[in-house]
Amino acid sequence: MHRLNLAQANTLIEAALAKGAELGLKPLTVTIHDPGGYLIACQRQDGASNMRVKLAGGKAAGALALGVSSRTIGDMAVDRPHFIAAVDTMSEGGMVPAAGGVIICDGSGTVVGAIGVTGDTSDNDEACALAAIEAAGLRAKN
Amino acid sequence: MHRLNLAQANTLIEAALAKGAELGLKPLTVTIHDPGGYLIACQRQDGASNMRVKLAGGKAAGALALGVSSRTIGDMAVDRPHFIAAVDTMSEGGMVPAAGGVIICDGSGTVVGAIGVTGDTSDNDEACALAAIEAAGLRAKN
Amino acid sequence: MHRLNLAQANTLIEAALAKGAELGLKPLTVTIHDPGGYLIACQRQDGASNMRVKLAGGKAAGALALGVSSRTIGDMAVDRPHFIAAVDTMSEGGMVPAAGGVIICDGSGTVVGAIGVTGDTSDNDEACALAAIEAAGLRAKN
Amino acid sequence: MHRLNLAQANTLIEAALAKGAELGLKPLTVTIHDPGGYLIACQRQDGASNMRVKLAGGKAAGALALGVSSRTIGDMAVDRPHFIAAVDTMSEGGMVPAAGGVIICDGSGTVVGAIGVTGDTSDNDEACALAAIEAAGLRAKN
Repeated sequence: MHRLNLAQANTLIEAALAKGAELGLKPLTVTIHDPGGYLIACQRQDGASNMRVKLAGGKAAGALALGVSSRTIGDMAVDRPHFIAAVDTMSEGGMVPAAGGVIICDGSGTVVGAIGVTGDTSDNDEACALAAIEAAGLRAKN
Repeated sequence: MHRLNLAQANTLIEAALAKGAELGLKPLTVTIHDPGGYLIACQRQDGASNMRVKLAGGKAAGALALGVSSRTIGDMAVDRPHFIAAVDTMSEGGMVPAAGGVIICDGSGTVVGAIGVTGDTSDNDEACALAAIEAAGLRAKN
Repeated sequence: MHRLNLAQANTLIEAALAKGAELGLKPLTVTIHDPGGYLIACQRQDGASNMRVKLAGGKAAGALALGVSSRTIGDMAVDRPHFIAAVDTMSEGGMVPAAGGVIICDGSGTVVGAIGVTGDTSDNDEACALAAIEAAGLRAKN
Repeated sequence: MHRLNLAQANTLIEAALAKGAELGLKPLTVTIHDPGGYLIACQRQDGASNMRVKLAGGKAAGALALGVSSRTIGDMAVDRPHFIAAVDTMSEGGMVPAAGGVIICDGSGTVVGAIGVTGDTSDNDEACALAAIEAAGLRAKN
């Protein structure tokens, strides 16, 4: 497996939305990306605002761009705001420095894509992302 | 109903992909947009190339931007290439002047969103878009 | 193998430049990309002009974006100039509609990256790209 | 000599990667630029993330743009974030305000290009850049 296939992408979205429902979260948007950061699938729940697909995508594609989770990028932005601001300007797809974007690996540790979640608090967004990865039998990159 | 809801968006995608399978088309990518052109949902089939979500989205969002189908925009581009080139540059999300992007209305004729399909010939892409709209009990804007 | 590794990328570049030397071509620039279009390696020969890495990269990344060789994209641009102009505007990395950008597959037919060559005629550029792929024991996508 | 030639560029890359291996660093990406900031050559090691060529290039091209090392630009960004943010926006290729981008001079002090390194800590990245310049018999601009 060199990248997530569409069936896996749909499974990941369903699992993330199910977790959001279980936790009673606000309307969520979930994006699934191949290792190049390109969308494979996305779903934006009713009531979620206009920019949500871009926000979720920026979390996930940013994670793939730098090779770390968007939570870590958020921490970097606190420590070195000028650095992340510059990288964000450089980033064609946009980079969202907040938890909720997680790189996905297969069993061998190979990067096969990423998931981005937005809509509730960043911590809750990330909890849904991690739950989805586990439900799909995949691994989050540390 | 002022815009497609997520359930309708997923139904539209499934119907478009089903039509593609029935016709034996190449891997398809389908995007569903609200009346503002923002993605509600998308799916890119295995084997579809990197830019396909953008291409499908450019067909659909371009249709909403000008208020006509992307087929008509393609015809306009043949007649007045300078005009569509300028509008394209102006377009934030990009505009793809080829059949496959169709504005969707409800029973009263109100615009509720758009669908974009790419992957096979433009004619086949549009056939899948129209089949999906019919399957979902909605109407294509003439 | 999910993408070309660096050793393969370097082999591809050396083979393309060797072909150029054999044919007595002008200074060449060769870029090697992963399936997402991101550079793995590049070399620009002495005497090649400023924009050459971008040009070679635009051939290769454009091929990956649309899933066909840059030669085919060049043919599409002749048939439907408005369409390729719009796709080019949409393309973040730029798209160069001329032969010399070729998608690379492994033995199973999985896309593992792309090569872009520029500097001589487009036909000669492509000849070097194809020779490099063969020399590296890989396959050009048809 | 008005700019690095390709042979020197390859020597610089090999030396930087050798230093990284010696120090046991994470996967590195090294870019070599002519005095105009244009890429002559680059190599991204296996496991390095998508944006790494851009990041290394932003360090090196930013150094050439302002005439000081990217370490100094990082210091400027701490002191005057609004200034570097503005310059960054103005910068076509992007500017990365962190150590690892170093201007390269020949024996007479003439600028002949720059090197950018990314992948480990900024200090380690810069150590590899400086080691490469020394190994190639060139000088870092103070």
